[in-house]
This record gives sequence, structure tokens and C-alpha cells, in this order.
Amino acid sequence: MEKVLIAGQWREASASSSFQAANPATRELLEPQYPVSNWEDCDEALTAAATAAAALRNLSGSQIADFLEAYANDIEEHAEAIVDMAHAETAYPKETRLAGGEMPRTTNQLRQAAAAARDGSWALPTIDTATNIRSVYGAIGPVCVFGPNNFPLAFGSASGGDFAAAIAAGNPVIAKANSSHPGTTKLFAECAQRAALATGMPAGMVQLIYRTNHADGERLVSDARTGATGYTGSRQAGLKLKQAADLVGKPIYLELSSVNPVVILPGALAERGAEIADEFTGSCLMGTGQFCTNPGLVLLLAGEYTDQFVKAITSKFAEAPVGTLLSAGVEESLASNLQVLVNAGAEMLVGNAAADAGRFCYANTLLKVTATQFLSDAEIMQTEAFGNSSLLLVAESVDELAKVVSILEGNLTGCIYSDSTGTDDDAYDQIASQMRMKVGRLLNDKMPTGVAVSAAMNHGGPFPATGHPGFTAVGIPGSLLRFGMLQCYDNIRPHRLPGILKDESPNGTVWRNVDGSWTQANLT
Amino acid sequence: MEKVLIAGQWREASASSSFQAANPATRELLEPQYPVSNWEDCDEALTAAATAAAALRNLSGSQIADFLEAYANDIEEHAEAIVDMAHAETAYPKETRLAGGEMPRTTNQLRQAAAAARDGSWALPTIDTATNIRSVYGAIGPVCVFGPNNFPLAFGSASGGDFAAAIAAGNPVIAKANSSHPGTTKLFAECAQRAALATGMPAGMVQLIYRTNHADGERLVSDARTGATGYTGSRQAGLKLKQAADLVGKPIYLELSSVNPVVILPGALAERGAEIADEFTGSCLMGTGQFCTNPGLVLLLAGEYTDQFVKAITSKFAEAPVGTLLSAGVEESLASNLQVLVNAGAEMLVGNAAADAGRFCYANTLLKVTATQFLSDAEIMQTEAFGNSSLLLVAESVDELAKVVSILEGNLTGCIYSDSTGTDDDAYDQIASQMRMKVGRLLNDKMPTGVAVSAAMNHGGPFPATGHPGFTAVGIPGSLLRFGMLQCYDNIRPHRLPGILKDESPNGTVWRNVDGSWTQANLT
Repeated sequence: MEKVLIAGQWREASASSSFQAANPATRELLEPQYPVSNWEDCDEALTAAATAAAALRNLSGSQIADFLEAYANDIEEHAEAIVDMAHAETAYPKETRLAGGEMPRTTNQLRQAAAAARDGSWALPTIDTATNIRSVYGAIGPVCVFGPNNFPLAFGSASGGDFAAAIAAGNPVIAKANSSHPGTTKLFAECAQRAALATGMPAGMVQLIYRTNHADGERLVSDARTGATGYTGSRQAGLKLKQAADLVGKPIYLELSSVNPVVILPGALAERGAEIADEFTGSCLMGTGQFCTNPGLVLLLAGEYTDQFVKAITSKFAEAPVGTLLSAGVEESLASNLQVLVNAGAEMLVGNAAADAGRFCYANTLLKVTATQFLSDAEIMQTEAFGNSSLLLVAESVDELAKVVSILEGNLTGCIYSDSTGTDDDAYDQIASQMRMKVGRLLNDKMPTGVAVSAAMNHGGPFPATGHPGFTAVGIPGSLLRFGMLQCYDNIRPHRLPGILKDESPNGTVWRNVDGSWTQANLT
Repeated sequence: MEKVLIAGQWREASASSSFQAANPATRELLEPQYPVSNWEDCDEALTAAATAAAALRNLSGSQIADFLEAYANDIEEHAEAIVDMAHAETAYPKETRLAGGEMPRTTNQLRQAAAAARDGSWALPTIDTATNIRSVYGAIGPVCVFGPNNFPLAFGSASGGDFAAAIAAGNPVIAKANSSHPGTTKLFAECAQRAALATGMPAGMVQLIYRTNHADGERLVSDARTGATGYTGSRQAGLKLKQAADLVGKPIYLELSSVNPVVILPGALAERGAEIADEFTGSCLMGTGQFCTNPGLVLLLAGEYTDQFVKAITSKFAEAPVGTLLSAGVEESLASNLQVLVNAGAEMLVGNAAADAGRFCYANTLLKVTATQFLSDAEIMQTEAFGNSSLLLVAESVDELAKVVSILEGNLTGCIYSDSTGTDDDAYDQIASQMRMKVGRLLNDKMPTGVAVSAAMNHGGPFPATGHPGFTAVGIPGSLLRFGMLQCYDNIRPHRLPGILKDESPNGTVWRNVDGSWTQANLT
């Protein structure tokens, strides 16, 4: 049985059961066994995290940055082992996805987070000299991170976006591994623990448990010692955690589900239909469709060019190799959610059948509905079928298309393709005004997959895409704000102010809002 | 029966019952009757608000600023009538409190909100030129505002801080009047409606209902058409609304309860005990103690100077005139919550008795406990007794004091008084490090009442002071962020970008973060 990392020690878990990951390419269970921790492990992790949180408040952003950079370096030294393990646990291709994609994204993200911690501008320091009131976002306390199955590296609970943001904001992290890739998470935690020791971080800076039962998960996110939680995963499990945390006012940031509507207007199809068919197929089948921003709902207007487009992508889906899915659970959910859509009246264009029995997978699938069908059963029709599938909707008019967009649930992204000469512009305006309120990120002429780690990124959106439309899970420094509390200092004696709020800038680089203007200068 | 304001029309309510306000100075009911609206009123208000929200998205911040300024002007033209009505409904003194205090605060706040809307910097526009991704906080949708009883003007649901912030962020407001001062709220809504007409705002910009039943309140905050809610009021009612909104992921910002701990260290008492006794008495009895930031828990260290201080404030409380309370409900809650503390073992020093039977009031009250008593029953001991009362806690050591602070619930404010020569400094450090995590605003040598409308203010704090420690309800522009959603534009064609994100600055004043630096310049 693998050991958990609690209070700086790799130790036997307090566990009453265990689980194993599986190799998606063979359906075979992988050694070793990982513990399902009892509350005792959670409790001890929380105590250690609270102690670490107090210690971290006495460290500078620069010291935390040292840790994050040492961690990124350590990951790079162990990259091959991590990639091997992640490949075994996820079946993602090593070169193009893991080593060449997620790995540099992960270390870059940690280094960007380090730079943000060192600089401090993320915390929006604000000084009102007339009243001598000063405020800044400060560390919120221990952060629990529940990572998703689909990004073992770049969104891993001990290595990814939530982790980097929580640490850079000055908080210790309790990582709950995803059951699809516990071994990968363990390797990251080993790197983190080495880096923490090397840079003098408190024990309990990064802790790892692999799994708990649901009740203990709910206790964890609502415990008095917890500061906040980041969760990416299934809507059902997430909503239970949200309810527990909300009841006691503990911030919880969740990424729950998103079908990512893509509107393709007729002028765009007339102009470059074949190109868009390639783009869509690539975006929808890449990574076997296992992206939060997978284009799961394509909105089209009835007509000749749409018929051609549907025909083209149907062929492409039939011909494209069938990718491997992450787990038996993903395979089962994909099949059953597609069945929900079919039961509601969606027409099967291609796929919707079991594929290779020797691995986790399901045929590349396209379903089709009319706007009338969709509108008559809108909640069911928005069922997310996570994986290599998409639902096409064909409307009879722009008004009908706009009506569909207006009743959508919240989504992470929404795309609109239009032609370059302006014939689609009236339709664009009508649809975009509805779409804008339904999505966190609006795109033109571009598929939604590919989430740049940019300061202007919003990987978020209205419920149920996330739990609050004001926050992003990707992008630095924005994502750090989730893990800060607003701390105001009123008439505090100058020597007692935190460095970032003293008259003299701590580093000459931090942007501070002084009497309404942003400046990097000292107060005069 | 008074009329409600829905969709730009003053019209008969759909109501099955009614209520009256009372004059706190006489306990007599005031004419007229106000309707308790049925769901039909809420539903129609939501529909009108949704239409208004869509129209507002096509207006500039400058046009919204015009409305806010016209509204502030209209209020000033009708200030005498508003003050008269508020005086009748709250018994607050006209000159010192209403006309001289809340009224200018209210109009200043509206004008600050106008300036923020016109400028746009509140929305943190962020541009990443390398990826051509741009983001900004945009209007979240219709905002429901439930105002508190204790600020009929400056935090009124159709005139106060939440209102100003929601409108300035580009949202229509559905105001739910506080039952203590419906007439005051109605006068404000009349001013707002005139200003909305004069400045071409959509019907449904500001709507007013007076009261609903609890179930309809919960429907209102969780309705699909609602963008967000601002609530200030009782913890019990607020938590029910929070639960309803949380279940469907609708942001709700609540100010629920706060005892506002004040630590007074012995050196400070030795140095200026008499002065602090005056400060405390003034802060605690001002406005009959009916402030969110009333100093309701005073933490002291056993010793000679503390004995003198307790004696001094006990005399002052006995001698000070007994103020009038806002309602029968406040009077009853104060008496019953003080009884909870006494039943838990608190010693009565002064007061804790009915006072003048001819008006709503209760004797100025001080209770006292030991730290041991407090720690043994900490949840009960943190019962907020809203009004002219405070609980004194005397600890035997700094360690014990720090322990008490470490187990406090979240509060809006926390104050620490220390001497000027440094003898209290070790104790300060120990206590402040605990206090910092428990409060939104930390103060030195200053009582917590008096909440400046400052850009650096945080009128917020960890649960249950509020529902999320990352937001402030007072202060412009910070308070506007509660009513914005993060909107990202990825590869959007330049002419389709909102003005605030175009290469050319819309006004030359808005601060935008371009590639990590804040600037007011155009993109080059």
C-alpha cells in the first residue's frame, strides 16, 4: 500500500480500504494499491496545514516563489518518470500530449505563479492616503484541491493550476489525488516535498491523500481549518461538496460541466466550410474529447452549406481513429449520456456504439436534433456527454438560434464563426448578445479547446460551468484571487503594516493602487 | 395601500396581506399600509429587470453615470421630505444623523459610483497582446437588494451602497424595502424613477417591492433571471436566502452578523484609559448601538487598569441617555440575546432591563465573562446582541487572550489598542496574528464604528460576518466587483470588442492592465 504525505512525512495511511488505477489501454489494473484515507488522515492533514498556513504568513512572496521555482526544477529533473507514470495511468500519448504539451505547461505555470508571488501585484494592494486605510488580498488559509481526471499534469491536484494559484497566494495545499492517476500525483508530491525541504517551507506545505469517502470529503471542505477549496470534476460530486462548503461559508471554486456551444453561421460555411470541418473534428476528437472546453454542442442554421458541413464531419468522425478514454467510468458515462440524448429524440449520425473491447473507448459520435426538439426538452438536451462526441443542432432561423442560446445553462466558452465579408454580421450581433451572458469566454472563428495561460484568460463562467461567474481557474495572476481574503488595515501603525502596504515598495515592481492611480513607485 | 414600482410604473401590488411601519419613539403604527407582494409581483419585476439588463448592456458607463448623478441631485431636491420620513420611521435624530450624516454619505456614494461607472477602471480590463485575449468584468444581470434596518438612507435598498454598486456595474436593481422604513424607501424609488426617465434609462432600471413571504424571497434570489443578490440583515433570514441562491450557483453577498472584537491592552489603559473609556462608550452607544460594526466584545487582561476601565465604562453606561431602538423586533432580540449570554454565565454589570415603555428601547447594558467561561461555551458567547450593549471578557494572560481570538467566528472588524511606548508590542504581535485571519478590517487605536467610503475599505470578512471573505460591501470601486461577471474575449474581431477593450481607450482615464502593466494609454 502506498503512503500518504502528511505533515511532511510519507507515512502509512489510516485507511479501511484501498483502490488501484487502471491502464486505459488494456483495462488492466495497475499496481500498487492506494489507500482510501479515513477521517483521521484528513484531520491530521488539516492540523498540519493550519500550522503551515500560520508559518507561511511570516514568509515573503519571494520565499514562496523560491519554492515554486525549485519545485518546477525538480519536476523537470524527474520528468521522464512522471511522463511514464502518467502515460501508464491515462494512456495519453507521451510525446505529443504529456512530455511535449502538459509538462512544459505545468512547469511554465508554476514559474508564472512564482513570478506572481514574488511581484505581489496579483493581490491588488490599495492605499488611500487621505484616510490612511490600506487593503490587500492575503492568504485565505489551507486550500483543498480536488483535481480532475483529464489533466494529470497541468491540472493535477499537486502540480496544476489550482495548486499553483493556491500556493502563490500564500497557502498550503492538501491535494486529493484523482483516482485515475494516483501514481502521477504521488510523483509530483515527492518533487514538491523535496523542493519544500530545500527551500525551508513548513511541513504541511504540500500534503497528499489519494481518496476519501464522500462524507469525509464534505467534512474536509467545510472544516473550520480549511480556507478554500478548488474542485474540478463531476457535477454530481461537486455539487455535494459545494453544498457542504456553502453551508458554513467556506469559498469553494468548482468547475462542473460545460457543453461549450459553437455557432457556425452560413456565410462562414460557404466561405470555408471544409476548413471549419477540419477544425471542429480536430478540436472535438483531440485527447478523445476529454477537455472541459470540448465543443459538445454545435449550432447551425438549416441550409445547403450546413448539410454539406454535417456530411463532412460525419465522414470525418467515422474515419478518425477512436481514441482511448481515461477510465471505465468515463466510458460508461459517455455511453449512458449519449443514450439520454437519444432517448430524448436525438438522431444518431455516426458512432454511439462500443468500440475496441480491449481498452476504454467508445466510437466517435455525432448526434443531431432540431431546435424545436432542443427547446422542448432543453434541460435534458444539455446533458454533457464528456468524451469524443458532439450534439449538432439545426435551427430554421436566426431567431430560433438566438432563442436556443438564450436558454442555455452557463458554459465555460461560446464560439461564433462568421464570414469575413459581413453577410453574417446581423446574425452575429443577435446571437453574440445572448451568448455573452452565458459563457466565460467568447471566441470568434476559433474552437474552444486550447486554454492559454494568459493574464486575460477566463476559464470560468456562469453556473453550472463553475460555482461563481467572477473567477477564473486558469491564468496568472487572476486565478490567485480565488485563494485570497480581502484584508484591510485601518490606522495601523506603519511598522506593523505588511511589506506590500508600507510607504516604501517592497520590491519596486509591485503595482499598487494609490489614491485611484496604479503605480510602482514608493509613496511620497 | 401604497403602490409598488414595477417595469417603470407605480401600480397596485398583487398582494394578499399588508403591513405598517411603526414610529419607534411612540410605538405607534404609522399610516399607510404597504403590500406584502405575491410571487406575481416578483415575477413581473424579474421579467422587466431582465429586459432592462439587456438594454443596459448597450449603454455606456457614462450614460449610467448620468443616471446616478441625476438621481443624487433629485435626492437632494427632496432631502427634507426623505429626512422627515426616515425620522418618523426610525427615530434617528434628523440633524446629526439623517440630514447631516447619512444624507451626504448617500449622495456622495452615488456620485462616487457614477465616477466609477464613467471611468471603468473598477472592471479591471486586462489585455494580453501576445495572445489577443482580453477580459473585463461586465454586468452580471438583475440584482436583488435586501437592505438593512439600520441605515435607511446610506444602505437603503434603493439608495445605498449595494444599490449604487449594482447600478454602477451596469445592472438594474429590484429593491426589497426594509419593513422598518418602507416609506423612506418609497421616496427614494420615486427620485430614482424620475432620474431614470430624465436620463433615458430602461423601464425596470429600479423597481421596488416592500415585502414578500420567505418562500418568494428564496425564489427571487434563485430565479434564472436574477444575476446576483445583496443582503444585509438577520443571520437567520440571510442563511435561508444564501442556501437557496447557492443551490443554483447565483452569487449572493450577505452581511450577517459581527461582534467586532476590541482588544485593549494594559499599557494602553495605563496610558490613556479615560480617553479610551470615552471612545468605547461613544462608539457602543452611538445610534443606540445599531451598527454592523458596533464593538460588541471587549477583550481585556486582568489587572488594575482593566478594573478601573470596567468601572469607568460601567458608570458611563449607567449615566448615558438610553437611545431609541429601531423596532419592536430589535428590542425583543436585544433582550433575548442578552438573556442568552446571562444564561450562559455572563455577569450583568449594568442595564439588562427594560427602559422607557413608551418607545422601543432597552437599558444600556454591559455584561462580563472570564476567558475561561467564554472558551467553555464559545459559540453561545459569540451571540450578537445587536444594540446598545457589549460583552466584556477578562483574560488572565496574553496566551489566554490569543486563544480566545483564535477561536472567534469571522467578524467585520477587529481592533487592538496598545500603548505608544512599546510595552504592549509583544502582546500585540501575538494577538494581531490571530486577529488578522478573523476579520475583514484590522484597526489600531480606533473604534470600529465609522466605515469610510474609501477605495481601500473592506466592509466584509470571513463567515458569518459575510458569505465570502473576498468582497467588500462598502468602498468604491471595490464593491462593484460583486456585481460583475468576468467576461473574456478570445480572438474577437476588433470592431466587436466592447469599447473598454478596444485598442484605443474609450476615455483616456480608464486604467487597463496591458501585458502586465497598468496604463491609461491607448495600445500602440
